[in-house]
This record gives sequence, structure tokens and C-alpha cells, in this order.
Amino acid sequence: MEVDLPDVVAEVTAEFERYEKALVTNDVTVLDAIFREDSRTIRYGATENLYGFDEIQAFRAGRPSAGLERTLSKTVITTYGRDFAVASTLFSRPSSGTRIGRQMQTWVRFPEGWRVVAAHVSLMEQPKAG
Amino acid sequence: MEVDLPDVVAEVTAEFERYEKALVTNDVTVLDAIFREDSRTIRYGATENLYGFDEIQAFRAGRPSAGLERTLSKTVITTYGRDFAVASTLFSRPSSGTRIGRQMQTWVRFPEGWRVVAAHVSLMEQPKAG
Repeated sequence: MEVDLPDVVAEVTAEFERYEKALVTNDVTVLDAIFREDSRTIRYGATENLYGFDEIQAFRAGRPSAGLERTLSKTVITTYGRDFAVASTLFSRPSSGTRIGRQMQTWVRFPEGWRVVAAHVSLMEQPKAG
Repeated sequence: MEVDLPDVVAEVTAEFERYEKALVTNDVTVLDAIFREDSRTIRYGATENLYGFDEIQAFRAGRPSAGLERTLSKTVITTYGRDFAVASTLFSRPSSGTRIGRQMQTWVRFPEGWRVVAAHVSLMEQPKAG
């Protein structure tokens, strides 16, 4: 198992960036295309637990499209072999106040391309300084 | 890519249950053995963002061992090929009050065995009934 093969990292990084652009512009078509269309695809969101592609698609369709801009930090994309990867990032957004966002995605390469099979997004209160 | 090969699902399920038992009994040795010893291993916890095995190990060592019992629900373990898997579960714990826990782990098989390479745990306020 080779970890972080450069060409695989480059592929997944491009997919990750495609997802990020679609998210902040609320491009629902691209967002739907990136998650694997399967009943076993799971997305735990900031305020919802979605089991299966149908629930994820319904959530995307009903989501308000304003205020989605965000700033990423501490993004780490690690690939395992040629077909598996994890992308983790923190994010901040004016609407999240003092809370820090965390997003983790598991990506798998299928014949049709790279797809997210599992994702977890949450907001955490930041530890008080000092 | 074959999804959910029965023998692979059985292997990962056994590892998942081993982790769960170690978590609720605070068996730090087993918990440490399950996460991959690598600087790229990431664990977003309920109240902390841990980058790298060393930070995860330090967190385990300093964690209070009381009140870790919990009840799982909606657990889904899905395997991709023979070497990759995702385990997702909800959990509830008396100390979490009205909040529901979500835990997602990405597992990879290395020569030394199955290891968690990424995990995300968070607590979410449950939607009000009615």
C-alpha cells in the first residue's frame, strides 16, 4: 500500500477543490455528482444525519444558498494506494460565530471516477484562549 | 471494486467492536494500537482537533476514564475492495444530554493489520420533536 503517490494526491486534490467551489456557489448538480449514488453513502452534517444518497440529495435541494462562503485551514489530503483517500479540513464562516468547522470526507475511485462515500461536518466551540 | 465482501465486512466489524470495547473501558493500549501510528492520522473529537498520532496518543493518555459508556445506533460498516472501509455510527450517552453523538472512522488494511487513519466524532443538538 503506497501512501501519497503524487499523481493520486493531485487527482484527489482537484476533486476536493471542485467540491469546495460547488459548495460555496451552491452548485447542486456538481455536489450531487460528487457523492456516490448509493444507499450506503452517509453524510453527517452540522445539523442533520443523512443516510443514503437520496437523503443527501434532498438536503442539497432544500438548502438555503446564501452565506456559504468559508475559509479553509489545516487541510490534509492523504491517499492510500490508488483508489482511496481521506480529505480533512477546518473551516470558518462568519455565520458560525466563534465555532470552528471540521469537515472530513472519504473518497473512493470507482469506474465512473472519484466519489465521496462518507462525509462528516461539524461545528465545535473553540477552546477559550489563555 | 467489490463493495461489502462478506469476509472483509466481518473483519472490519470485529475491529470496530474491539475499538468500541476499548473505548468504553478506556483501554488506552488498545485504543493507541488501533489508530495508525503516522503523522497523517487525524482525529476530530467532540472538543478537540488532533493532527497526527502523537496528538491522539496524548489525548487518550489525559482523558478522564469515567462516564464513557454509550449506546450505539444506526451503525453502518461498508467495505470497498479488501483494504478499505468506513464505519459510521450514532451514539448516545447520559452525559451528552439531549445531544446525539456521531462517529465516523476510515479504516485501511496495512501489512500490520487494520488501522483507523481518520476519525471524526461530534455532538449535535437533536431537532425538536413536532
